[in-house]
Amino acid sequence: MFRPQIKVLDCTIRDGGLINNHDFDHRFVRAVYKAISEAGVDYMEMGYRNSKKLFSPKEYGAWKFCTDDDIRRVVEGIESQTKISIMVDVGRVDLDDVKPKPESPIDMIRVASYVKDIDKAIFMVNDFAAKGYETTINVMAISVDQGPELDEALHQIEEESKIKVLYIVDSFGGLYQEPVENLVKRARSILKNKEVGFHGHNHQQLAFGNTIEAIIHNANYLDGTIYGIGRAAGNCPLELLIGFLKNPKFDIRPILELISKEFIPLREKIEWGYIIPYAVSGMMNVHPRAAMALRKTKDKENYREFYESLIDPEVD
Amino acid sequence: MFRPQIKVLDCTIRDGGLINNHDFDHRFVRAVYKAISEAGVDYMEMGYRNSKKLFSPKEYGAWKFCTDDDIRRVVEGIESQTKISIMVDVGRVDLDDVKPKPESPIDMIRVASYVKDIDKAIFMVNDFAAKGYETTINVMAISVDQGPELDEALHQIEEESKIKVLYIVDSFGGLYQEPVENLVKRARSILKNKEVGFHGHNHQQLAFGNTIEAIIHNANYLDGTIYGIGRAAGNCPLELLIGFLKNPKFDIRPILELISKEFIPLREKIEWGYIIPYAVSGMMNVHPRAAMALRKTKDKENYREFYESLIDPEVD
Repeated sequence: MFRPQIKVLDCTIRDGGLINNHDFDHRFVRAVYKAISEAGVDYMEMGYRNSKKLFSPKEYGAWKFCTDDDIRRVVEGIESQTKISIMVDVGRVDLDDVKPKPESPIDMIRVASYVKDIDKAIFMVNDFAAKGYETTINVMAISVDQGPELDEALHQIEEESKIKVLYIVDSFGGLYQEPVENLVKRARSILKNKEVGFHGHNHQQLAFGNTIEAIIHNANYLDGTIYGIGRAAGNCPLELLIGFLKNPKFDIRPILELISKEFIPLREKIEWGYIIPYAVSGMMNVHPRAAMALRKTKDKENYREFYESLIDPEVD
Repeated sequence: MFRPQIKVLDCTIRDGGLINNHDFDHRFVRAVYKAISEAGVDYMEMGYRNSKKLFSPKEYGAWKFCTDDDIRRVVEGIESQTKISIMVDVGRVDLDDVKPKPESPIDMIRVASYVKDIDKAIFMVNDFAAKGYETTINVMAISVDQGPELDEALHQIEEESKIKVLYIVDSFGGLYQEPVENLVKRARSILKNKEVGFHGHNHQQLAFGNTIEAIIHNANYLDGTIYGIGRAAGNCPLELLIGFLKNPKFDIRPILELISKEFIPLREKIEWGYIIPYAVSGMMNVHPRAAMALRKTKDKENYREFYESLIDPEVD
């Protein structure tokens, strides 16, 4: 598959930060940036820009805040064509913390939003766009928000926002290929002037397959992380995505080398990947928070009981 | 997805046997059979029926030979609707070792064959069918054998064989969704009187996604293994497949319980799953034997060098 419009975004540090309190040291982040640059990946997302009024830098690592200065320290002296992205959550960023683009090393700002918050997200992306950034809206947890409100949000985004890309985000790892096909087609039919992107979670080992499905139906912005690192089961492994895409600009070798040197040892310290409670969360199409909590207890391998706890939610 | 025609075959012991010399003890195999039976899985494949003239029982476990007596010891006293399958390779079975169906606990015999050996495979399945067994031909390594010889083989199978099911086998984990769609459609267009099945390998984390793709295009016989155990990266995880299929006859809970009790400890002793050299083999669409050999050396984590060894094959 070679389509020149395709752009790959690495969110190793951003989504991986969700499982280590965003506490990667600068040496590690520089090593990732160097490999991503050598691999020809289009974007690298460094983390979140959260307000320090809401979260304490004593409790979180640098990539929870992603200051311009921290990013400059990472990229300094490394030859690269890779653009820099950060993510912001609705309601957690101080807009004044985002300087005009000419004063910042950042190229793109992605706003993560639930469907219900789309008005706020549009307000934010338009502020960032006016400051000169590329922008996206990433619609989270879309597997549980496929009703008419989604169409309404997509129409609003098309008509009112200045985004470049609308991302479909399978936060729960609950989507199979057919829903991915439907969602990508639906977004493309409404968003006539924007690109569509896809961000998968790997709870059911479908992040890569679903990304291929999104590509088939003309999503052009694709997220991956090195060795699939990310919250819960993690994301689409970047190395598989690059292996699939035949675009001559990509080189898989720096990624393979970095996995050997950094990610195999890291995986001994923090956990992600194919783990049954996350798979069960995906099947059930629910947030992995119950599974994440389970993994910190002595019952972490009691899969049957965990499954049964989810099928008996006592709702009325 | 609920289609009454769908049949699921568990090949945990058979494909898993490829990574432990087929040396599962009877207690373990009985535990698997019990869980598979309780889960409502349609078939369980116990292993290979190899000739003891070709392989020594001193060097291999019982499931390399799958005698009727060993199978009887496994199933005895366990209530079950699950049918028993064995696999045979072309050229490795003594046909006289296969008794008529009424004298055997076996229900189905699957013949694994390359396209080039299809005449031999047809001869064998017709012998087994005449003895009263359900039979299949499993076309191995189909990702590297998609030329006109495949059509010829499919026509021969349709016209000359008494099989019930033709399986598409992605031995190298090299198929993506679109080739799976094409192969299933191609097989179904030629095989008007047989069912089509799919057996995936998980080198690129696509075994489950590709199985869904096969289901979408009306393959009705689907292979899986518990916790994805199998050669190299392993197979489609049975628990994911059962979680996806909405057929009310299936119950995932016995499988989840067995993973907790047996497969988590087993995975500490033998290796399968997402391992980069297997992923690279899948991308390259080659047999995983070089990767399997690498994993036994001190260079087992040298992914870049392994990748480079495969892209420089010095062919002319």
